[in-house]
Amino acid sequence: MAAAPVWSVDPRTGKPREQVADEATAHEVDTVVRAAHDARGFLADRTVRAAFLRTAADRLEDAKDRLVEAADAESALGPVRLNSELARTCYQLRAFAGIVEEGAFLDVVIDHPDADATPPVPDLRRYKVPLGVVAVYSASNFPFAFSVAGGDTASALAAGNPVVVKAHPDHPALSELVAKVLRRAAAEHGVPADVLGLVHGFEAGLELIRHPLIAAAGFTGSVRGGRALFDAAAARPVPIPFHGELGSLNPVLVTEAAAAERAEAIGTGLAGSMTLGTGQFCVKPGLVLAPSGASGDRLVKSLTDAVSDTEAGVLLDHRMRDNFLAGVTERAGLPGVESPVTPGAGGEHTVSAGFLTVPAAHLTAEGAYDLLLEECFGPVTVVARYEDDAEARAVLARLPGNLTATVHLSAGEAAGEGRGAEILAELTPLAGRVLVNGWPTGVAVAPAQHHGGPYPATTSTSTSVGGTAVERWLRPVAYQGVPEALLPPELRDANPLGLPRRFDGVLER
Amino acid sequence: MAAAPVWSVDPRTGKPREQVADEATAHEVDTVVRAAHDARGFLADRTVRAAFLRTAADRLEDAKDRLVEAADAESALGPVRLNSELARTCYQLRAFAGIVEEGAFLDVVIDHPDADATPPVPDLRRYKVPLGVVAVYSASNFPFAFSVAGGDTASALAAGNPVVVKAHPDHPALSELVAKVLRRAAAEHGVPADVLGLVHGFEAGLELIRHPLIAAAGFTGSVRGGRALFDAAAARPVPIPFHGELGSLNPVLVTEAAAAERAEAIGTGLAGSMTLGTGQFCVKPGLVLAPSGASGDRLVKSLTDAVSDTEAGVLLDHRMRDNFLAGVTERAGLPGVESPVTPGAGGEHTVSAGFLTVPAAHLTAEGAYDLLLEECFGPVTVVARYEDDAEARAVLARLPGNLTATVHLSAGEAAGEGRGAEILAELTPLAGRVLVNGWPTGVAVAPAQHHGGPYPATTSTSTSVGGTAVERWLRPVAYQGVPEALLPPELRDANPLGLPRRFDGVLER
Repeated sequence: MAAAPVWSVDPRTGKPREQVADEATAHEVDTVVRAAHDARGFLADRTVRAAFLRTAADRLEDAKDRLVEAADAESALGPVRLNSELARTCYQLRAFAGIVEEGAFLDVVIDHPDADATPPVPDLRRYKVPLGVVAVYSASNFPFAFSVAGGDTASALAAGNPVVVKAHPDHPALSELVAKVLRRAAAEHGVPADVLGLVHGFEAGLELIRHPLIAAAGFTGSVRGGRALFDAAAARPVPIPFHGELGSLNPVLVTEAAAAERAEAIGTGLAGSMTLGTGQFCVKPGLVLAPSGASGDRLVKSLTDAVSDTEAGVLLDHRMRDNFLAGVTERAGLPGVESPVTPGAGGEHTVSAGFLTVPAAHLTAEGAYDLLLEECFGPVTVVARYEDDAEARAVLARLPGNLTATVHLSAGEAAGEGRGAEILAELTPLAGRVLVNGWPTGVAVAPAQHHGGPYPATTSTSTSVGGTAVERWLRPVAYQGVPEALLPPELRDANPLGLPRRFDGVLER
Repeated sequence: MAAAPVWSVDPRTGKPREQVADEATAHEVDTVVRAAHDARGFLADRTVRAAFLRTAADRLEDAKDRLVEAADAESALGPVRLNSELARTCYQLRAFAGIVEEGAFLDVVIDHPDADATPPVPDLRRYKVPLGVVAVYSASNFPFAFSVAGGDTASALAAGNPVVVKAHPDHPALSELVAKVLRRAAAEHGVPADVLGLVHGFEAGLELIRHPLIAAAGFTGSVRGGRALFDAAAARPVPIPFHGELGSLNPVLVTEAAAAERAEAIGTGLAGSMTLGTGQFCVKPGLVLAPSGASGDRLVKSLTDAVSDTEAGVLLDHRMRDNFLAGVTERAGLPGVESPVTPGAGGEHTVSAGFLTVPAAHLTAEGAYDLLLEECFGPVTVVARYEDDAEARAVLARLPGNLTATVHLSAGEAAGEGRGAEILAELTPLAGRVLVNGWPTGVAVAPAQHHGGPYPATTSTSTSVGGTAVERWLRPVAYQGVPEALLPPELRDANPLGLPRRFDGVLER
């Protein structure tokens, strides 16, 4: 059987640019995974890991112009956005280097013997060890930050695991370039280049998730693709953790008081957030609950003006464009749904932003309108007009899990008047990040970040952005009665590495 | 259709004692889960939760005599063991009360805005919230500590989640009694009794794992039962975390030097550990790698003497006795396997302890002898005699995941001579707890404990014993741009609750 070619395609024209590679065969996947597995010992030293991550960031920056050009040619995301995404990616690699050095994620807990406990406690010392080779499935919409050198890879390496990346077919050439940079950065620190493997191909992705030496997986993409891989991970003879970020509607509630106070600003802000990057963010606000009546009308008017002014854009690939056009057509065709600005085809290769409105009453019970509660990838949002708080709550109660949930409050509500705190409590079960008076697009890389949420937002309770993302790739081990001479330095009483820890029950920092 | 009766059975005679209940119908399961879900808000206050857990411990102690009598009648574990297990259970409930009060598990992280970050960081504050109603599947072999009031229940309540327990059919009457004690303890603190539900029946257990309001599950039991429930949890429209402890061989390696130094003590210690509780512990040492030659012979001799002196015992139920007898017969029948003390039937309702020996060479490659690498529940262990280190390592490399792995070292090796540190590193990938010169039976309730391990030891990377067990039942939520007036007290700058946290990157304790 001939190997299937992997082509780089220009989304601005739909035309192939060059053949990048062949899809990996099962044998090739096996070779890459075994090589990564064999390299794992070289990541054991945290000092080496941190240095490798910093060098990776340096080398990506060194190659910035070439990488951004390659990324733009395959993604059409434009150099401004791509330069900023690359900067974010490097910032993230360095942030994880700092996390590696601090070592809090090792979660060291030391208990000395306690004869008075029930039952008595022996000498017990626990910390976390890397899981093994991690499979990372790249995203289409973040060719840097959620791809070969993205958050999953950075956090998995930070935890001490080799990584095998399944490249996204939307940017295979860039994936090869970035992988080379990472592999060379590893070599600079005496770490075998095979600590970062790369494979192409749909079937190769399935082979990867089923490989016995793959210990965990990270994924960013669609509900359909992510669920198929999640199911494969769970069906293995030895199931493995699958941390997938699949899909999210990212509901926004605008209170009556907030709309009365600043309908125009909210409408403009919403337009900016939902059309940002041609609506191709997983945290794009896809459902907005706005009051019926005059204040809500002003919001819709302002949104109409701002969205009308948005230029047509190129989506990441033509399949997405087809799905977007079909999705908006089907949604707009529902009785009672209006299109103040009709989303649709721009030119032959572009799409134009738009939005739909619907009475919220249509969304309070199961039926055909449930389509409006599903994510539609691209520059469109649905504004559901509610009659009263109870109706808005009824819609919120029907939503699946989300990455984010947002409320816009009036100044008074933000200061504690009215239902502000109640609304926050109502939004919390819906999402992994809850915002007040902001927009969900823009996911900061920060210790307190949580980019995840109830299914289908993510398939686990973990985050793929922020410092705690490293926790996904570790498991605890407790050592009982191990003599001082044999203890790893992390677990010695004297704490030679200066790690934060819990020592005989007391937190030490 | 008539409801299926649930009988309490005396394992000492195999005779039914009394009908305890009926198996729960799907409708009844639904009612119990919904009632638990509706009660969840009453657990929101950590002070109330801690008080409830302490009262639960107090009330279990108040009812001690009655509970131990009921437990013994259904489990035949005897009052000494059961009193100590109940004490452990109460200690555990109080330990979790302390964990609730400390609040470190909330994992509070606060980031103030940082315009210099890439991208800029907004005000972000993260902590962990309870998942929702937790399903707990009780174990047969710990009627107190891993059942209705056991570690899964205690940790799930500590995290703020209601619990619905699926009672183990080996102790339905005790389950009812313990549930009543817990429900009354809840009521003492104004928490609805429905915060702790109890159902009986195999089908009810399946209904439970599939119920849309069940948010996570804990399980202690067999590989077969646990995997079926794990699969059901993963196949749900909304998959949920399933923390199952399934099975473990608990390998023990005795080095040549250790055997030379103290073969007799090791043999006697092994006999005590493998026959403890009639071999019905999940951490029973089921495979012992002992050297061939004179030192190993002394170990086997000492084991023979000690095991021969062990009295016959009653297993938890007659199905287990049947499985044990079939399991040891099949294993003993393999060519080259010897039985220095033949395990088998004691009297009509009892079993007698024994052990098998086999050349380790039989275990270094796939084949019929793989049966010896599977857990056999009951008082039996397999001693594999190895010729050299390489052979011992080859057997270890073939083992599935374990709860524990143990090495017995000589005094010199423990002090750093020879391969001690290397062996520890080799055992670490095999298990969640690694012991030196001890026995795996006896699982301390302590902050550093880890009772879990690579599959099939557990289906997740978490622990079911020790302080960190609480982490299984939580998910993080980040709040972005939330005004001070609306922030929960846990996330306020002033830290009114005195919680340990990470504040602008710095750990505060």
